[in-house]
Amino acid sequence: MTQTVISSASREVVIGFETPFTVIGERINPTGRALLAEELKAGDFSCVEADALAQVAAGATMLDVNVGVPLTDEAALMAQAVTLLQSLTDVPLAIDSSVPEALEAGLEAYRGKALLNSVTGEEERLEMVLPLVRKHGAAVVAICNDDTGISPDIDVRFEVARKIIERAADHGIPASDVVVDPLAMPVGAMPGAGVQALELIHRLRTELKVNTTCGASNVSFGLPNRAGLNPTFLAMAIGAGLTSAITNPLEPTLMQAVRGADVIMDHDAQCQAWIRAHRAPAARDGRRRGRRRSRG
Amino acid sequence: MTQTVISSASREVVIGFETPFTVIGERINPTGRALLAEELKAGDFSCVEADALAQVAAGATMLDVNVGVPLTDEAALMAQAVTLLQSLTDVPLAIDSSVPEALEAGLEAYRGKALLNSVTGEEERLEMVLPLVRKHGAAVVAICNDDTGISPDIDVRFEVARKIIERAADHGIPASDVVVDPLAMPVGAMPGAGVQALELIHRLRTELKVNTTCGASNVSFGLPNRAGLNPTFLAMAIGAGLTSAITNPLEPTLMQAVRGADVIMDHDAQCQAWIRAHRAPAARDGRRRGRRRSRG
Repeated sequence: MTQTVISSASREVVIGFETPFTVIGERINPTGRALLAEELKAGDFSCVEADALAQVAAGATMLDVNVGVPLTDEAALMAQAVTLLQSLTDVPLAIDSSVPEALEAGLEAYRGKALLNSVTGEEERLEMVLPLVRKHGAAVVAICNDDTGISPDIDVRFEVARKIIERAADHGIPASDVVVDPLAMPVGAMPGAGVQALELIHRLRTELKVNTTCGASNVSFGLPNRAGLNPTFLAMAIGAGLTSAITNPLEPTLMQAVRGADVIMDHDAQCQAWIRAHRAPAARDGRRRGRRRSRG
Repeated sequence: MTQTVISSASREVVIGFETPFTVIGERINPTGRALLAEELKAGDFSCVEADALAQVAAGATMLDVNVGVPLTDEAALMAQAVTLLQSLTDVPLAIDSSVPEALEAGLEAYRGKALLNSVTGEEERLEMVLPLVRKHGAAVVAICNDDTGISPDIDVRFEVARKIIERAADHGIPASDVVVDPLAMPVGAMPGAGVQALELIHRLRTELKVNTTCGASNVSFGLPNRAGLNPTFLAMAIGAGLTSAITNPLEPTLMQAVRGADVIMDHDAQCQAWIRAHRAPAARDGRRRGRRRSRG
């Protein structure tokens, strides 16, 4: 029954075993997006604004914010982005950077309890990031790699997760505030990576009893029809115990899989969200016609 | 590593833990199909023929055959249908009836090792069906209900499965020739039915170590956009351990989920089937152009 509560100034999101799956919108990230990178370099947040609103409208209940562009003051950009986003939307944010100063600037600008993205099992990262998490009362994404890199062996990745959770506890951070990313690897390059990710998610859920997140599209890297494969992986991962993903809510088939998985997992009470989203057009027409008639 | 081998005169299909998911085409069944029922009553197999060819073309590697129309000689119809289908296609068949005489007539007409659909935990059914399975060296679908009906409690359904497997063993039928149907119930009517089905599938796989099958569309009964929900349930069920389904291969999104799940489960070597099915149109055009040029 682990619950990770993340909040903005006015809204709480619970990542948990008994709640609807949490979709953390991934779009605010300049990696591979030249236009967004150019804008951020020029201090222009038009694209960030549009991405935020579109992702929330599409069903994201949290937004990841990464403004990592080379040759910029990333800490200043992060503070600006966080302040802007919190004026635009009430969904909680994941503050995402590989630069500790940017993580800190984001946390200082943030109102609420953020999700810090991320810490790894690397010694230097643990000692830099965990004190920040503790100081600001945040939660943190824990990525299952350490100083030796990303192990292809899921037993090793499991032990990295355990180590991060133990180190977090040493800093006074409860396991419920650590959201583990099992690192789903591309199945095209690593045969077995898919089923291994499912096994690792299941072990993290049942043995360490933690919430989990992952970049759900990584698994299809290098394959054709990625948009056709990602929803299937995500559904299987939710079945195995995954409780959130940093992913693209603007892909309708992906969101349909998430909503369908909520129905199957019994996290959509009386299937109300599913029924609302998919009510037959005929029924809607009927209601519209009825309304018109009652006016005429 | 349980394997259930089903065969026609010239082709084997393995339902198993380490093989691609087995899609058993469900269309040859007059339930809810008035035209097919009328045709069968008149001894006309046009629709049966068309359904068989279409389902095999769409990727079914087995076909379920049910010709249960009231006021007909179902045993005679079953024998005719089986003989006809085996002249049309080499995919193995599941002989599906609630009438023991029709099961027996189907088995007698069948060339190869059939899957008999089905036996339940009801005493009378066990004693009627299992001797037929043994006599003809068939495999059998075991449905998890008994004389008390379908229990909403998955522990009870699990014990029904165990009982059927034990009784099959008493008749000399190995557990590897029993394919258990956990009975996925409609989530719209029974909250929790989806996650319970996943749990039961997982227990059947890990504790009884048997192959499983189910009518994958039952879970969405009564809900809107069933075609959008069924592939998600099926993907999650495959992740939980389901190894076959009696379902509609003519639904492209369902087959895409099955093929995607094969990729994730590492049952599609080097992702070759996925890549073949989804190769970018540009690449295909390129190859076609290349071929034309080499001729010109």
